[in-house]
Amino acid sequence: MFESVEVGHRLKKSTFKRREPQLRQRLLALQYRMLEKNEFPVVVLVNGLDGAGKSETVNLFNEWMDPRHIRTVAFGPPTDWERERPPMWRYWQSLPPKGHVGLLYGSWYEDAIDRRVFGRLKRGELERRLDAIRHFERMLAAEGTVLLKLWFHLSRPAQKARLDELAGDKYTAWRVTREEWRQYRSYDSFVSVAEEVLSETSSGEAPWEIIDGADHEFRSLTAGTLLAETLESRLAGKKPEAAPVPPPPRPPLDHRNLLNAADYTRRLPRDSYETKLEKHQARLNALMRSARMRERSLVAVFEGVDAAGKGSTIRRITQALDARRYRVIPIAAPTEEERAQPYLWRFWRHVPGHGRAAIFDRSWYGRVLVERVEGFAPEQDWMRAYPEINDFEEQLAGAGAIVAKFWLAITPEEQLRRFKSREATAYKRYKIGPDDWRNRKKWRAYEHAVVDMVERTSTAAAPWNVITSDDKLHSRIAVLKTLCTTIEDAL
Amino acid sequence: MFESVEVGHRLKKSTFKRREPQLRQRLLALQYRMLEKNEFPVVVLVNGLDGAGKSETVNLFNEWMDPRHIRTVAFGPPTDWERERPPMWRYWQSLPPKGHVGLLYGSWYEDAIDRRVFGRLKRGELERRLDAIRHFERMLAAEGTVLLKLWFHLSRPAQKARLDELAGDKYTAWRVTREEWRQYRSYDSFVSVAEEVLSETSSGEAPWEIIDGADHEFRSLTAGTLLAETLESRLAGKKPEAAPVPPPPRPPLDHRNLLNAADYTRRLPRDSYETKLEKHQARLNALMRSARMRERSLVAVFEGVDAAGKGSTIRRITQALDARRYRVIPIAAPTEEERAQPYLWRFWRHVPGHGRAAIFDRSWYGRVLVERVEGFAPEQDWMRAYPEINDFEEQLAGAGAIVAKFWLAITPEEQLRRFKSREATAYKRYKIGPDDWRNRKKWRAYEHAVVDMVERTSTAAAPWNVITSDDKLHSRIAVLKTLCTTIEDAL
Repeated sequence: MFESVEVGHRLKKSTFKRREPQLRQRLLALQYRMLEKNEFPVVVLVNGLDGAGKSETVNLFNEWMDPRHIRTVAFGPPTDWERERPPMWRYWQSLPPKGHVGLLYGSWYEDAIDRRVFGRLKRGELERRLDAIRHFERMLAAEGTVLLKLWFHLSRPAQKARLDELAGDKYTAWRVTREEWRQYRSYDSFVSVAEEVLSETSSGEAPWEIIDGADHEFRSLTAGTLLAETLESRLAGKKPEAAPVPPPPRPPLDHRNLLNAADYTRRLPRDSYETKLEKHQARLNALMRSARMRERSLVAVFEGVDAAGKGSTIRRITQALDARRYRVIPIAAPTEEERAQPYLWRFWRHVPGHGRAAIFDRSWYGRVLVERVEGFAPEQDWMRAYPEINDFEEQLAGAGAIVAKFWLAITPEEQLRRFKSREATAYKRYKIGPDDWRNRKKWRAYEHAVVDMVERTSTAAAPWNVITSDDKLHSRIAVLKTLCTTIEDAL
Repeated sequence: MFESVEVGHRLKKSTFKRREPQLRQRLLALQYRMLEKNEFPVVVLVNGLDGAGKSETVNLFNEWMDPRHIRTVAFGPPTDWERERPPMWRYWQSLPPKGHVGLLYGSWYEDAIDRRVFGRLKRGELERRLDAIRHFERMLAAEGTVLLKLWFHLSRPAQKARLDELAGDKYTAWRVTREEWRQYRSYDSFVSVAEEVLSETSSGEAPWEIIDGADHEFRSLTAGTLLAETLESRLAGKKPEAAPVPPPPRPPLDHRNLLNAADYTRRLPRDSYETKLEKHQARLNALMRSARMRERSLVAVFEGVDAAGKGSTIRRITQALDARRYRVIPIAAPTEEERAQPYLWRFWRHVPGHGRAAIFDRSWYGRVLVERVEGFAPEQDWMRAYPEINDFEEQLAGAGAIVAKFWLAITPEEQLRRFKSREATAYKRYKIGPDDWRNRKKWRAYEHAVVDMVERTSTAAAPWNVITSDDKLHSRIAVLKTLCTTIEDAL
């Protein structure tokens, strides 16, 4: 894979001097067109061998373009804060908003390659990492992000020569630390792991570009030209072809499904409710305080049609929790910062650390529910949301989160009753508006979307719990019990 | 202070039942008017004795109002992430945006009071904390935030009775942990510290409201009514009177000042520049890698008129740093999320952790420079920015940050030369526009603002460095040297 770049590419200084101003001008013009359009971000991954010009390229890009619209991020060993969350968390946090350029030094590859070279990542673990990376990059591409993956290569003698040169000068010696020499001593194994990683992650949406890093002029002009070409092609409207999605499922002909076949008649008398509520709140509290919870976290998701009882159920849960250790996250319209990022970004930012709980009142499932039914998201977007969501939840579970998802199911008759009661009570009137009545008319379309959602996103890591909720008291206790059992099973 | 609430307030259950629906309706209507206005947030501090109904009140407010527009936050022991930053950092992060309600359980008082009661905060340290709190609350009030500070009190026998009651029931026993009993055993000292803290922080902008917490009905209705009244008064346009600010300083009659009296003739030849650059970059690198830096951080601020050389100077610094340990933060127009918060919020979010550097390309000084000169901020806002900024930087320094501030000073003649050169070079043209020419016409007004800024915000913790920069080479080396010396002195 690297043979063809090791032929000793060079460019004359005079050629570089002549072409650099043109390239700068071209890149700047492109950067400004992109900023004005404000439709997509560019993410440049800067990876490769030490001494091959990675940081020089990052500096050069910052000099050639307007650095106020560039976000440069480099990744060191993960902090405690990062270690308590899925490995991809910190990369989500570092994505540039639409219209901007992200220069990700080391990116999501460096840690994986380094760990594998130095034996801190088993083969199977590497495979899982690469899988997560492939999914992530496919999602980025589907969201419109322009990905440019640069690998700066050096032959073994060229790396030695470069490190010697830097180390020999007292003023540049600090650029060569033990880490760099360590990589050089493992040159063969580093290059072989890199070769495997690159070939497994070079996809149609996000191919790798390998650049000979030995000659400053050649390397810089090549990297800059690649960026310019990538931007031009995207601004000309060329997008990488999205992976085809299967057609949306059709509802069964008899319209019988897990929602309308469920038993909505279960009731719980008030006195038995009070006792059970206290009992299971105490149980939940004990579980959340247990020593084993210190290395885990809880992500609870509440979905349901309007008036299904999400808010009041959540309150019965939070009453049992230490207020310092949970956050309720109501999902409303995304903010400007959130709209400038991929769909799942606004949920990733709320992923809790160890010993903590995040309770979502509506969630990332909006995409396959309201956005699907109302046509806010095009079909290919909500169809790809299923695997993206599964992947997100699997990553949460992989990092120790207990993911508990609840669909509070009510019948259309019960909803009507609650709507009317809301209209009749002054302090409940805010909960009911024309939107609710409108959504109600699409009951069957919503039902269809819910059934698809439950089928496609009930995974081993994060199964759905459908709770019939025509009786609020029965429903609250059922949720509390299920939540406790889920936590118990996980611990 | 607490005597008058210990008289045994009660409210009949029937009275409560009658009045609760009216109060809910009133609160909801107010919440919606506030949301629609989207002009100010409400911050409710929920503090007091354990068992006095703090968490019940938080739950009740969430039930009475629309919880989707309420942000409830409780504070436990600080995490590592928080410990590396000023104590007020996490409170900044938890502020609700405009239009929303924040319920801050424990708020910025609990930690201070607890530490003082259990001897982990000396008297002087408590004083400094209270000082920081007073400044913070004054700033919040000046930014338009509605502050409601609730203290829930219990007499000693009432606290005992409440804790016994909870502990005696097997299902509520978990609500009483060692922490609660510990507070009870220190009742006298807790109450006496609280008394002192409350009286020192009850100000015109943000008075304390003390509520007898023994009776559920009395306490709930009182707290809810206080919130409703506070909101009504604010929505009726009543704001707490802002502390008067001194009039803005006038420029001296001879117009001689530290900028126009400086020596702009200093030059550095290119060959000596190259050597010095490498030397001081190596020095800076060694300093940033030193063991003593692991408990410190660096906050570098670059300000200067257009074309003063901020960007190219910053690049000479970042070339010497480990890319994993710094962030360059270019300050552009605030985002929607940032506009919904107090002015300094968007800078607080970038405060670096230990061993890290944050380099600001323009900064919080925009308020006393461009916003002052262009009239974007009213006089009382930019005038109060001086002490607020000093306070911010003092807090940074107090948490171990080395704050280095640079004003790159150039003459109007040099700026003109650079503007023309920018217009003549294709790839520099993006750096020059009508704004720059317009700003130039206000040279004297800007100069006046800069002189005021340097005078009013050069503190022991964070002095200004004015670097004459007509010669870029001289200026870059001067900045590097000053930065190194600042770090050396601090370590």
